[in-house]
Amino acid sequence: MLATEVIKKKRDDTDALTQQEIDFFIQGYASGQIPDYQMASLLMSIFLNGMTKEETIHLTQSMLNSGERIDFGELYPVDKHSTGGVGDKTSLILAPIVAACGIPVPMMSGRGLGHTGGTLDKLESIPGFNVNLDLATFQSMVEKTNLSFIGQTAKICPADKKIYGLRDVTATVESLPLICASIMSKKIAEGIKGLVLDVKVGSGAFMKTIEAARELATGLISIGQGQGIKTSALITNMNQPLGRFVGNALEVGECLSILQRRDFLGHDYRSFADTESLSLGLAAHMIANAKKINLTEAKVQAQEALDSGAAFEKFAEVCKTQDGDLDQLLMPNQQTPVAAKKDGFVSAFNSESIGLAGIELGAGRKVASDVVNPLPGIEVCKKIGDSIKAGETLFVIHHTSQPSGIKEAKKHLSSCYSIETSPSETTNLILETL
Amino acid sequence: MLATEVIKKKRDDTDALTQQEIDFFIQGYASGQIPDYQMASLLMSIFLNGMTKEETIHLTQSMLNSGERIDFGELYPVDKHSTGGVGDKTSLILAPIVAACGIPVPMMSGRGLGHTGGTLDKLESIPGFNVNLDLATFQSMVEKTNLSFIGQTAKICPADKKIYGLRDVTATVESLPLICASIMSKKIAEGIKGLVLDVKVGSGAFMKTIEAARELATGLISIGQGQGIKTSALITNMNQPLGRFVGNALEVGECLSILQRRDFLGHDYRSFADTESLSLGLAAHMIANAKKINLTEAKVQAQEALDSGAAFEKFAEVCKTQDGDLDQLLMPNQQTPVAAKKDGFVSAFNSESIGLAGIELGAGRKVASDVVNPLPGIEVCKKIGDSIKAGETLFVIHHTSQPSGIKEAKKHLSSCYSIETSPSETTNLILETL
Repeated sequence: MLATEVIKKKRDDTDALTQQEIDFFIQGYASGQIPDYQMASLLMSIFLNGMTKEETIHLTQSMLNSGERIDFGELYPVDKHSTGGVGDKTSLILAPIVAACGIPVPMMSGRGLGHTGGTLDKLESIPGFNVNLDLATFQSMVEKTNLSFIGQTAKICPADKKIYGLRDVTATVESLPLICASIMSKKIAEGIKGLVLDVKVGSGAFMKTIEAARELATGLISIGQGQGIKTSALITNMNQPLGRFVGNALEVGECLSILQRRDFLGHDYRSFADTESLSLGLAAHMIANAKKINLTEAKVQAQEALDSGAAFEKFAEVCKTQDGDLDQLLMPNQQTPVAAKKDGFVSAFNSESIGLAGIELGAGRKVASDVVNPLPGIEVCKKIGDSIKAGETLFVIHHTSQPSGIKEAKKHLSSCYSIETSPSETTNLILETL
Repeated sequence: MLATEVIKKKRDDTDALTQQEIDFFIQGYASGQIPDYQMASLLMSIFLNGMTKEETIHLTQSMLNSGERIDFGELYPVDKHSTGGVGDKTSLILAPIVAACGIPVPMMSGRGLGHTGGTLDKLESIPGFNVNLDLATFQSMVEKTNLSFIGQTAKICPADKKIYGLRDVTATVESLPLICASIMSKKIAEGIKGLVLDVKVGSGAFMKTIEAARELATGLISIGQGQGIKTSALITNMNQPLGRFVGNALEVGECLSILQRRDFLGHDYRSFADTESLSLGLAAHMIANAKKINLTEAKVQAQEALDSGAAFEKFAEVCKTQDGDLDQLLMPNQQTPVAAKKDGFVSAFNSESIGLAGIELGAGRKVASDVVNPLPGIEVCKKIGDSIKAGETLFVIHHTSQPSGIKEAKKHLSSCYSIETSPSETTNLILETL
């Protein structure tokens, strides 16, 4: 088989690539026999000509085959995957809830890039928290305590890791089949039997329209089902940041407030109702998936795990096992408010700009090699529909005594919202369930 | 400027690339600052989304700017470019004809690849012939004797050379704008003021239909005119090999027979009427172009240069100046005939198969690094429309006493023709003039 013949077939789009052709290319690339420039050419052909459902499933399978796959035997582990948003911290709440309900949750997460955050960065704001467990330790921890958090290791889907790096520099990131295969190969490698997808839509999400979100969700579900994984998706609103805080330590603080039913930085845990509500909703779908019970019953179990403190205990246990010291969690100690410019009702946020303000403060990454500062972040004091007065605080920039990027962050924040004279209709957090 | 932004623009095809963006990418690639994988991604975007006429002109200019450009001052040099065929040997006849008429012909040629031959390989079958002159020597020879033959040097369009190598391994060869820019940048760098294109169409050509050939010719002409070069094109028939011989030394022999009005391997020079006729036709267009006279007058001058022996003298002079010894030209000394399978009239050839038979004999290249044997070749004994008997010789394989690939060549030749019961209509050699 020749690499150029496979490229030509996709380029001319005459017929679908076979499993054998895709395997030849992916394994050849992973092993270094097929060079970057041939993969770049194939990626652009896929970007422009797309892939059939079957080709995407083959691609996923091939990336999966490039590395190891955990086998949990008779267990029924479930996971959640979010397509990424601003202030999206649900993993830290739903994972302990689901684990506390007796379900194994092997959570392999990513780091933040661009305006969206990543679970690993949030966890690492807890001093000592080690996300670099080897696969055997990860598996035995999930088997023992139902929950562990790790980052992607070199042993899981190495082909995906190499291809993802190349997509970033060849303008082939935003391709539905490539995105689907990349997400799903890593999730399937975790050895899960059930998966709940949180597909974000709106100004702070990768998908800007409900149609695009639906297309992505459908694509992901079809790969999951094709691999024998019970997969469902929630399409959720990302037109404003989730919860009140954006920033690694601040987001952990908000989650602990919800898990412990206590105040955080002067706010009652009920102030973070949207974070709690989405976390419970996703957790319920995971519980229903694993226990084969209806959603109403699953919601009761999720709420009970949260209210009883069982979820917090589970989170504390995991932190301890992974060397994280919750007592040492630091928060930024300085605040710089950003005031609203006029009276009215908040009608819109450009959540992406809020994420970019976070990057300016050092809380996020412009490029994958950037080092993240756990402390700084942004507090979003109003939600869409809230009334506000000119001069009233809309955002608080939280930082340390040696801040950087405040000016640039302020610039983003000052132009990332709209205020209207009458309140706009509020939309649901969960828009659709697929 | 970012390479990925330029790729994205072409990928999304929202707006044409600017001269500045194309220059940034081409010069960046030539200097090694832009890596192969980014160029591969851009090339596939161009392949699938095309280029406007203006973008193609910018691309040509940018490849031209990557190297040197000869300046012939007040002289009016003309050249011919053929898109490649089987048995296409007209350069060796028309170049001395035009030069003998007092017109400078700076002929920079290529090597054969795949089923099509190359002028350099044919010239190198003349013992000692040196096609590796430096640009200054080449220029001064053209100024002194009106003719010199060289290969592409590293100083002419280095960006094109690098891009061409990459296209070959990324399945991006057959792209009209990329082909046009590659051909024209090299021709313009020769310092020509006039250009006649021989665009081949048919079973042995890159362009299989007259529409495709017309599109290519139009594209090439528009770049030539855009660069102030008086450009015209002949679309010519490549449904059967040109002339009687295919193979490097054999083709030189056929050309010398025409130039010297003498027999070759037992055939009167009039047996090679199609080679002579096309060479004269192209030469006349070049003469008319340079001397600004009408085609009828130019044809008379071309014929006179051939009949008088002036063209042969010019060719002999050039051979001598470039160290080629015509007296030492060797021919293969063994023959293996291939007989027709049935009675009737030859109705079609798959010329590409005849070219591939030549490759099996060592007369051509599968890949650019192959070494070519000057001796072996194929004699095509019948033309389309000729009558033939079963068992009568249709092809002769010419080889040496240590042949290789005869069996494979025979296989190609035995299945590369059709014989019908009645003669098919013959088509003209020159189909259109643009």
